[in-house]
Amino acid sequence: MNTNKERINNLQKKLADRFGIEVKYNLLVQSMSHTSYVNEINEDRSLSYEKLEFLGDAVLQFVITEYIYRNYPDLDEGELTRFRANIVQSASLSQFSLELGLDHAVLLGQGELKNSGNRRRALMEDIFESLLGAIYLSSGLQAVTKFLNESVIKDIKSGNLKMNVDYKTTLQELLQEAGSVKIEYIPREHLDQKDDWTTDLYVNDQLLGSGVGHNRKSAEQQAAQVALEKLQAKQDH
Amino acid sequence: MNTNKERINNLQKKLADRFGIEVKYNLLVQSMSHTSYVNEINEDRSLSYEKLEFLGDAVLQFVITEYIYRNYPDLDEGELTRFRANIVQSASLSQFSLELGLDHAVLLGQGELKNSGNRRRALMEDIFESLLGAIYLSSGLQAVTKFLNESVIKDIKSGNLKMNVDYKTTLQELLQEAGSVKIEYIPREHLDQKDDWTTDLYVNDQLLGSGVGHNRKSAEQQAAQVALEKLQAKQDH
Repeated sequence: MNTNKERINNLQKKLADRFGIEVKYNLLVQSMSHTSYVNEINEDRSLSYEKLEFLGDAVLQFVITEYIYRNYPDLDEGELTRFRANIVQSASLSQFSLELGLDHAVLLGQGELKNSGNRRRALMEDIFESLLGAIYLSSGLQAVTKFLNESVIKDIKSGNLKMNVDYKTTLQELLQEAGSVKIEYIPREHLDQKDDWTTDLYVNDQLLGSGVGHNRKSAEQQAAQVALEKLQAKQDH
Repeated sequence: MNTNKERINNLQKKLADRFGIEVKYNLLVQSMSHTSYVNEINEDRSLSYEKLEFLGDAVLQFVITEYIYRNYPDLDEGELTRFRANIVQSASLSQFSLELGLDHAVLLGQGELKNSGNRRRALMEDIFESLLGAIYLSSGLQAVTKFLNESVIKDIKSGNLKMNVDYKTTLQELLQEAGSVKIEYIPREHLDQKDDWTTDLYVNDQLLGSGVGHNRKSAEQQAAQVALEKLQAKQDH
């Protein structure tokens, strides 16, 4: 078992060798430090990865937004929004973390280790973003773009990330895993042809999400996407 | 009444004179073109401002995120998130649009004009963001930052944008405008001290939002914020 220092050193070396990216040691430590670890060594919570994740998420959204804006000129803004949501979703980002071996670099407290927390998808997503924050602060936007070109954007190009997800079908399948369920998409009053549609999604008579779109179909897809994100957040926490 | 060409020319000149920013004419036209206008002149919907708004929103989020990350080192990520949400909210962005006179530059179809749509807050927010998209594509990130330094960031510095909004109080006041209402914050089962709290917000027994936070208070604030955004979206559409 490597010491913490060795694990961070290994990651630093990997980022340099594989991506030609320099990340400052202290920032790299922070980007891999879970609050449980920071608590354990009696450090301030502000030294955990959370703030770097906040920054890294915004950098990620920006780089991916520009990439799909420029490279998918035929998509409208609704399609671009859904495409982006699909790209930066938890499942795909956590996959990149595992590929990079961030699960071997992340610093967790003993409690988290016992919970096999280091495999948790949400954690893997978080530290992918906090790593982006550390790269950004160490080496700027170009370095982040370079890194994303070799990971997320490479996956977009290869077609691994599907452009259009049918959220309604995905949601239906997920909900029906637990048995019979009543799913209703109820459009709100739609007065003007030019206005957007708003649709509420009720599952067993409980409002689970709402969506806005240029037509009924797109509003329903968005409502289903919102509901899926809620269910996913529930699972992650 | 100025012609459309004159209105766009005036805006282009204003951006150059006041901010030293060059924006390409065609991009500026697009950033000010509402779908109702594009429909009216039988152009493709892709020539409306919507895609530039998608891009501009991401640039805005990124620049503001970095600004508050660097300048408010004492805030934790929850506070930073709420602060950012408050900065990029509809009301303040639409205010900048009006200050810039974008309401005189926006290109609307006849139907929208009759609805006095050119004053609508949502529209003003949209075109502030689409203008950012046009600036970004014309002159890059530095130009956007320069522009934001003279508008949104200037407002942050002056203290006009409050750091912490009490969303619970704001929501309560808003809901009670319409009469008596039952508001309940119900925490989900909270198993582990180290875990985040999740709280569901019910208004008259209907789920209106959920929040996740490091403690009960912060989860409730987030749930209230989600609910406020929903109500605002409802008003805007």
